[in-house]
Order: sequence, then structure tokens, then C-alpha cells
Amino acid sequence: MEGADNSIFVGTKPFMNYVTGVVIQFTTKDAKEVLVKARGKFISRAVDVAEIAVKRFLKDQIRVQSINIDSEEFENKEGKDVHVSTIEIILERI
Amino acid sequence: MEGADNSIFVGTKPFMNYVTGVVIQFTTKDAKEVLVKARGKFISRAVDVAEIAVKRFLKDQIRVQSINIDSEEFENKEGKDVHVSTIEIILERI
Repeated sequence: MEGADNSIFVGTKPFMNYVTGVVIQFTTKDAKEVLVKARGKFISRAVDVAEIAVKRFLKDQIRVQSINIDSEEFENKEGKDVHVSTIEIILERI
Repeated sequence: MEGADNSIFVGTKPFMNYVTGVVIQFTTKDAKEVLVKARGKFISRAVDVAEIAVKRFLKDQIRVQSINIDSEEFENKEGKDVHVSTIEIILERI
């Protein structure tokens, strides 16, 4: 996990787990930056996590530094090309 | 619609409608910039639309200029506070 410690991958767990994860990184772990990442349909959730952390839980303490989107293309079991979008939201301490 | 012409709001319509909308803006309408916007669960779809336009349909012709996320807070019919995240992906001609 070393080096990837300040990344939060948003998926199927309860929503508040991810928000708490961000808060702990910035508080207990004293991170300067936290990366909120997601793929496919979880992208909307990653944006929710970032917004709730920035606007409520760590209001006036962190902000969105930058947002990157990208794609992964791969072949599924049926040999069909599949496209999955990804997002990376970088939050930083103010 | 004037002034908002180069905005594509991603929602429930068939996916390719939005990709085609982006392509038409940059080609037929000769736009320099196109804004792909969405709220809530449609944010993932907006990222897909932008990625497919940039990586496939208008490859080497457009790129992501910037991405903004924000929130809207409002009271629903039951008087409960509701949070909805929003995204705005600005695409530009290369």
C-alpha cells in the first residue's frame, strides 16, 4: 500500500466510508494531497465524495486542486472492445 | 437557447445523441469550445461522452481544457436537504 496511501478508490462500499477516508488522510495522516479515484458508474459517486468533503466535512480546509479524466480500453470475455472512463480528483490542503 | 448553444446537458437520452451533439458543435457549428454538463448520476455518463468524443470521434482535433465540479443544495418535497453534485467538462479545439 506504500505510496498509494493517499488514494481513495470509490466503489460499492457505504458512501460515508469514502468521505471518512478522505477526512482521515487530511487529519490523522496529515496528508497534503488526497486522490479520489473511480471508474465507470462510480465516477458520479467520487464527485459526491469530493464535494461533501470539500463543502461540509473539511470546509475552508481543503479544495479541489485538479481533475483528470481518462479511459481504459480492454477486450471482454466475449472478445468485444469495452471502454471504461476513469476520474482522478486531487484534493489539497488550503 | 442563444449563448447556451455550445452546452450539451447529459441526461436520459441515448448515449450517442450526446456524442453527436459534441461532434456537430465542433464541426457544423464551428465551435471553439463545447461544455459537457451533467448532474447527479449522469456525471459518469458526461465523462463517457467527453472521453469518446476526445479519444475516438474527434481524436487529435479536440482535448479537455478544464473540468469543474460543484454542488447544488436544495430542500425536497419532504423538507429534507438534498445535495446534488454537478460537473462541467470544457472541451476545446486543438
